[in-house]
Amino acid sequence: MDFCGKPVRSRSKYASDVKRQCFMPTGHSGKCHEFPYLAHLDRVAPKVADKIVRDSTMTTGASWKSADAGPNRILRWVMLRSDEELRKLGIDMKGLKPQVVAKLREKAADYASCMAVAKTLTAAAYSMPNAPEAPKPIAEYLAACGMPIVPHTTRCLVCRGLLDFKLFAEAKRGKAEIETSHSNPRLHRPDNVGFAHRACNIAQGNKTLDEFYDWIKEILRATSRCD
Amino acid sequence: MDFCGKPVRSRSKYASDVKRQCFMPTGHSGKCHEFPYLAHLDRVAPKVADKIVRDSTMTTGASWKSADAGPNRILRWVMLRSDEELRKLGIDMKGLKPQVVAKLREKAADYASCMAVAKTLTAAAYSMPNAPEAPKPIAEYLAACGMPIVPHTTRCLVCRGLLDFKLFAEAKRGKAEIETSHSNPRLHRPDNVGFAHRACNIAQGNKTLDEFYDWIKEILRATSRCD
Repeated sequence: MDFCGKPVRSRSKYASDVKRQCFMPTGHSGKCHEFPYLAHLDRVAPKVADKIVRDSTMTTGASWKSADAGPNRILRWVMLRSDEELRKLGIDMKGLKPQVVAKLREKAADYASCMAVAKTLTAAAYSMPNAPEAPKPIAEYLAACGMPIVPHTTRCLVCRGLLDFKLFAEAKRGKAEIETSHSNPRLHRPDNVGFAHRACNIAQGNKTLDEFYDWIKEILRATSRCD
Repeated sequence: MDFCGKPVRSRSKYASDVKRQCFMPTGHSGKCHEFPYLAHLDRVAPKVADKIVRDSTMTTGASWKSADAGPNRILRWVMLRSDEELRKLGIDMKGLKPQVVAKLREKAADYASCMAVAKTLTAAAYSMPNAPEAPKPIAEYLAACGMPIVPHTTRCLVCRGLLDFKLFAEAKRGKAEIETSHSNPRLHRPDNVGFAHRACNIAQGNKTLDEFYDWIKEILRATSRCD
């Protein structure tokens, strides 16, 4: 599928060199749009649409914002730049705690990967039990991108349980019950990303899924509970 | 074993009604002390001694401190009081987020339980591989309390791997590699407490150990990895 590709305006103060693009089909009518496939979710489940944009494109540096913790969320492709370039943009990486720098840096990803992740997550959200039905043009668009919606099939990346769309709206202690998850936490790519239960994502931590499964298998062996 | 039991001074501003006590043996000479069995660790591994006192006696409300998050750490027995009593002490529970209140309240414990937990954790620390050797009076004291030191036996409460004392000094991303852990996270009692790897403790989350093992067993079943 060919995209329009015209530059769209970015509100980020770190926008200088990466040109964000229009992902409407070539020759589209009407306005350009970076996330045209989110137009429907934006109306019927705006928090889910926001989450998909945020998780595809932004890092998390820390759960709080302070001089020490640095910028809480920053565009993933900005984190590909050198300390020197970031300094010019007003981000002093050398002033941040090493653990915060590590967390920010390992979430870096190029713009194309982030855009592909956004499509993958959108298709995954529409493929959940109890998801709203996608308008035909959006379903066709995602299918043409190689990310078809297959209703009632989205499973937690970690425990493989079906993920109900309603869980997006549920929160325990202020934390959403569904999180964006990575098979390998250090690769932000469409083939490596999905949704997971919050508890599953936390338990996986910074291990790859294979490492996680090996680890819990060992725990069950050590406690003689694997039968 | 009988304790002196004389009141020791507390620096807490919430000290009003619970009398903190001297846990030196009855008829001891010299000064009273609430944690006499920590005197040696206090010299050779002060951070470990501090951690034992802190984890036995204090709640964690949130990982940060703000008006919203409330007091970051507070004495566990203070958290047994009513909202009304706490208001008089300057703690406005009604002004805190419900998730913070829940987290603080479930960490409440009475003074006697906290003191017993401190002894259990001290014996567990001395029983780790590479732990310093306890002076004989301390070893005898803990044994008399029913918490004997058994060198080279302390295991992670979750994965059952031996816990090396050196891990106390190791930190990844600013977080210590050993955490105080509870078989049932809602019971702060000596029979329910121990040390665990940080990743193990995080993975367990707010599940009891039994719930955690059942859960990971299910994950391995669902991913066909339990053999």
